[in-house]
Amino acid sequence: MSKTMLAAVLHGIKDLRVDERAIPELEPGKALVRVRRGGICGSDVHYFEEGRFGSFAVTAPFVLGHEVTGEVVAVADGVSQPAVGQRVVVNPSRQCGHCDYCRNGRGNLCRNVRMLGSASTKPPTNGGFSEYLLVGAEQCFPVPPQIDDGLGAMIEPFAVALHALKRVGSVVGKPVIVTGGGPIGLLTVIAARACGATTIAVSDPVAERRQMALQVGADSAFDPTEASFKDQVAALTGDGFEILFEASGAVPALKQAFEVVRRGGTIVQIGVYSAPEISLPVNQLLVRELQFVGSFRYGNVWEEAIRLVASGRVNLQPLISRVLPLKQAAEALALACAKTGVVKVQIDLT
Amino acid sequence: MSKTMLAAVLHGIKDLRVDERAIPELEPGKALVRVRRGGICGSDVHYFEEGRFGSFAVTAPFVLGHEVTGEVVAVADGVSQPAVGQRVVVNPSRQCGHCDYCRNGRGNLCRNVRMLGSASTKPPTNGGFSEYLLVGAEQCFPVPPQIDDGLGAMIEPFAVALHALKRVGSVVGKPVIVTGGGPIGLLTVIAARACGATTIAVSDPVAERRQMALQVGADSAFDPTEASFKDQVAALTGDGFEILFEASGAVPALKQAFEVVRRGGTIVQIGVYSAPEISLPVNQLLVRELQFVGSFRYGNVWEEAIRLVASGRVNLQPLISRVLPLKQAAEALALACAKTGVVKVQIDLT
Amino acid sequence: MSKTMLAAVLHGIKDLRVDERAIPELEPGKALVRVRRGGICGSDVHYFEEGRFGSFAVTAPFVLGHEVTGEVVAVADGVSQPAVGQRVVVNPSRQCGHCDYCRNGRGNLCRNVRMLGSASTKPPTNGGFSEYLLVGAEQCFPVPPQIDDGLGAMIEPFAVALHALKRVGSVVGKPVIVTGGGPIGLLTVIAARACGATTIAVSDPVAERRQMALQVGADSAFDPTEASFKDQVAALTGDGFEILFEASGAVPALKQAFEVVRRGGTIVQIGVYSAPEISLPVNQLLVRELQFVGSFRYGNVWEEAIRLVASGRVNLQPLISRVLPLKQAAEALALACAKTGVVKVQIDLT
Amino acid sequence: MSKTMLAAVLHGIKDLRVDERAIPELEPGKALVRVRRGGICGSDVHYFEEGRFGSFAVTAPFVLGHEVTGEVVAVADGVSQPAVGQRVVVNPSRQCGHCDYCRNGRGNLCRNVRMLGSASTKPPTNGGFSEYLLVGAEQCFPVPPQIDDGLGAMIEPFAVALHALKRVGSVVGKPVIVTGGGPIGLLTVIAARACGATTIAVSDPVAERRQMALQVGADSAFDPTEASFKDQVAALTGDGFEILFEASGAVPALKQAFEVVRRGGTIVQIGVYSAPEISLPVNQLLVRELQFVGSFRYGNVWEEAIRLVASGRVNLQPLISRVLPLKQAAEALALACAKTGVVKVQIDLT
Repeated sequence: MSKTMLAAVLHGIKDLRVDERAIPELEPGKALVRVRRGGICGSDVHYFEEGRFGSFAVTAPFVLGHEVTGEVVAVADGVSQPAVGQRVVVNPSRQCGHCDYCRNGRGNLCRNVRMLGSASTKPPTNGGFSEYLLVGAEQCFPVPPQIDDGLGAMIEPFAVALHALKRVGSVVGKPVIVTGGGPIGLLTVIAARACGATTIAVSDPVAERRQMALQVGADSAFDPTEASFKDQVAALTGDGFEILFEASGAVPALKQAFEVVRRGGTIVQIGVYSAPEISLPVNQLLVRELQFVGSFRYGNVWEEAIRLVASGRVNLQPLISRVLPLKQAAEALALACAKTGVVKVQIDLT
Repeated sequence: MSKTMLAAVLHGIKDLRVDERAIPELEPGKALVRVRRGGICGSDVHYFEEGRFGSFAVTAPFVLGHEVTGEVVAVADGVSQPAVGQRVVVNPSRQCGHCDYCRNGRGNLCRNVRMLGSASTKPPTNGGFSEYLLVGAEQCFPVPPQIDDGLGAMIEPFAVALHALKRVGSVVGKPVIVTGGGPIGLLTVIAARACGATTIAVSDPVAERRQMALQVGADSAFDPTEASFKDQVAALTGDGFEILFEASGAVPALKQAFEVVRRGGTIVQIGVYSAPEISLPVNQLLVRELQFVGSFRYGNVWEEAIRLVASGRVNLQPLISRVLPLKQAAEALALACAKTGVVKVQIDLT
Repeated sequence: MSKTMLAAVLHGIKDLRVDERAIPELEPGKALVRVRRGGICGSDVHYFEEGRFGSFAVTAPFVLGHEVTGEVVAVADGVSQPAVGQRVVVNPSRQCGHCDYCRNGRGNLCRNVRMLGSASTKPPTNGGFSEYLLVGAEQCFPVPPQIDDGLGAMIEPFAVALHALKRVGSVVGKPVIVTGGGPIGLLTVIAARACGATTIAVSDPVAERRQMALQVGADSAFDPTEASFKDQVAALTGDGFEILFEASGAVPALKQAFEVVRRGGTIVQIGVYSAPEISLPVNQLLVRELQFVGSFRYGNVWEEAIRLVASGRVNLQPLISRVLPLKQAAEALALACAKTGVVKVQIDLT
Repeated sequence: MSKTMLAAVLHGIKDLRVDERAIPELEPGKALVRVRRGGICGSDVHYFEEGRFGSFAVTAPFVLGHEVTGEVVAVADGVSQPAVGQRVVVNPSRQCGHCDYCRNGRGNLCRNVRMLGSASTKPPTNGGFSEYLLVGAEQCFPVPPQIDDGLGAMIEPFAVALHALKRVGSVVGKPVIVTGGGPIGLLTVIAARACGATTIAVSDPVAERRQMALQVGADSAFDPTEASFKDQVAALTGDGFEILFEASGAVPALKQAFEVVRRGGTIVQIGVYSAPEISLPVNQLLVRELQFVGSFRYGNVWEEAIRLVASGRVNLQPLISRVLPLKQAAEALALACAKTGVVKVQIDLT
């Protein structure tokens, strides 16, 4: 293979260029992946539009992207898995495997984690919108033929949703609501359905998103800005939902959460807020004995996510709105910035 | 209403008669149910064919049946739920609500439990194959119109399966196997699918049952008497299933269980054995750190079971093989004795 | 016995009188208890000082008290447990045993609960500062001779602490902190120690309370108003506590909680706030994947609490500061109002 | 330092020699430990007496020992923890950190595990009865000064017991029994007490062991060969223990287990059997809804174990019966073979 590759590099706010870069060289314990498809995440959009994601400011040009699928083209000596030629999805979060969090099965909280396509390090860590990507062998999860490149690049965001489900134990036969009908909200609906929840409701002020939620498996969809919202919830559930997934990052959604969840219920926080603090009715948490839990990335749900998609139990295809070639990466990012009209935009690197 | 009713009374081995009996009178805290449909369970078959079920010998004539759906026709003073006129399924197991097991959410182990249609008491406790049935108000679970009488009478055996699933925590995205393709085995397949398991395999020596298992949602079906069984399991799963539900009550199935479950896996016992003891490789349990857990009846899964059926997430209709009127109760029992050709036989009491 | 008894009745703010009242008559399923000792709880103090507890305003005179031990003097027909003559502690919270919460082992959230000595009903429900008390048979838990009257009346508040511990699963070998060194905070220290936590820290601005915390088993005690508080936490724990029990009801304590708990940690809310809402850093909950859980009363910890005290594993004696006779009930309440100098004040009804 | 060291090498049955061997050289990611104390485990005794441990036969001379404490004398480049000079205990089981078991917090079932002082590999893997030991940096857990060399070498067997406790969730306030009063049984008593169990019983046919169990914290001790054993259990517990830890590896103990555990209870298997299969009353597991779970080595309990010992919550000192210098290693092994008179024998390598 040639020594150089193309990659979508963020040079500044709204300044994304397809640059030629050196193909990374193999290192011990690693695998070199020929990337075939990359999905655009909300954090990519934030870096692109604002030059920062939360507290992580971009300090140098770097390659975006962390939702990728590809093919293994080389592995270091001694690496038995994955094999060269295997199609894989990549867990963009490299865990050390040995700190106390990793040993306890909470590798998403690893003390030494390194995340692809992220400005959380200085300089930023390059991501996956590049023809070749060097990752730890253990970050590669083989996928069967039923999972094509597009679906493969959906596994990462689906893992976020599946991890959120895992945070609440069983939802089987239980009424749940997802607040927020963006990509992660929709994936949470799909995950909740795969996990046996019933009834599944979605709330979002945007009609198009409610419509999409119903298409991907929600049983009902509410506009939370309607005055009758709480009455509608009561009509559907009696005394409220057992579990609420907050996937909007909208302050009013979280405040409402404490009202639409029943006694003993659980609120799972997935959405990120721009506000540093939010006023909450803590006494309600106490006297109604609620659980309010954060859900961060994906613990250890990769094999489960792959099996659910490969078996056809879940269908992520409807969420892929547009696929553009690498050379149009900047256009793809601009498209993804739109909050409506598209769910997931992907970049084709083949 | 008239003062008498008809009921299917077991007088001796294979001696089931439709007798006229007094309609029970209301008691405090109770509801009178006009039974509309009753399913025949394996224990009914044992009482009918052998005059006993395990250690419970029939000591006096009694009404069989505990899988029932009906309509509430009267409730005692002060009972607020269910309401007269509501269609309900009946939990045949009356729990005291206050012993240490009940308080801990393990009401299926209640110290003071009383089971309908059972010879565990002396004299036996009458069951539900009678036009009217007096039960505790809290034993009645209202069902929506989507659940017709036939599906309603399937909720009880489905609750057995759902409880077994609940005993293992999450099965989402995990490979599971059900050993035994009888009614409970098939219901376990359906429950496992509703709970997100993938892949789901079934093993049964009878081809017809394997076929039925595939129809209701199993991904693959094995004949465990084939020499290549273990190779087939390895081809499908690599190193074995994560969870095995033993629903056959066949000794070879349990012995194989310890070989087809992977390290760290769980075996759930649902089937009853005629043998008092079974030789098991306990060191395997230790060095492979398995869990071997019993699953007894249904803890507290009634609302979940009803919601899963009502929402259409699970379809129990294919398991209802035959429905006969009350006057043909003896024929219905004889039919149910056949191990093949039928899955569930029900009695129509309308 | 005579037909009347003495009881400490709250007639208005700071107007507590020892009145003569009729001894309640037995009802089905109930037990009549000759109360021997009653402890004064924070809610009693609120009713006494302010005429209300949170949103519950006193609408009519009623008997205070819900931390009681006594002797069973009569039981209704058919009640097999407790037996007449048994010494018992009383669970002041009567659960229905049959609603969905009760069936799921979360009886503290029972839909039909009735609480002794509480203005949550209209009229208020009489409590236990009376010579005789009529309660459900299942509310009585026999205690062995090692538990004298004083310790018996400590079981109820200890159950609050033990339930809080139960809300977090295992604390074995884990560093925990209790914020607030009042009666419930001290009992939480004792419970945490019994459950295997190490290290156990307490934070309280009051030196006397920190001293008491160290006496009952805390390993260290902090003044959270000191500028170096966070440095002290870091010196002790590295990156923070794994579990925090918020037992102060002080807003600054909860805000600090999110800073002194490590990634993946749990905050348990026990204390009640006067503020309706509190501003919290919700993004921290998300990116550090915390759990924030309410703990309400006591689920089902009575037998465990009794065994821990009876076995000598925990010693609650040091928390009993003063015992006054029933005729001095008003004095006892006044004493309990003091935030320092006393931990628990009890009333002797023998 | 010199280039050679002394080590206790097993050359054949009962042929243990102190040989001179080369000090291992540092490798990437590793730490070199100057071993100070090593405890003799049952597996060491099996290798010494029989040349095998279960299915693992000794195929070449190797260094015994895996319960060790020492001081770090060198670390590979880039290793930040442990630091040179730190006193550490060594987890003898090296886990890969990245297989599905490791990622799920079940590293004790790691697919790529490598165990010190074990004939499970061919050739056997050398153990820790040698002056220097090369291990993965992540296998070293620093210990504070309160844990001296002897206590440090007790952490590994205590971790076995603590892991068994972790397998059952909470034991707080619950009656438990440990069958078998050998070293692991005694450590399980100590662990159960640290975790809040009450009452704790022990059963062992040997009076000396029962006596020792009472000394280290058991509340009662039974001779299971007495005809009145079950009556004694009933007198103590009513309807049986909630949890049973089988630490004897004796078949009768396991058979009795199903009789002395109450409905809904748990049996934890820690002891290894010489019999390949054991006949068990599986229907009891079903109708009494028991859990029967294996407990293999130690998952992730090292920090907890160290904190419990360092804090003084548990006292392991009474279990250390004898300490002999390395040159008397053969004598030490012979001593450890005795089933009575000693609990734990250690080898001093300073």
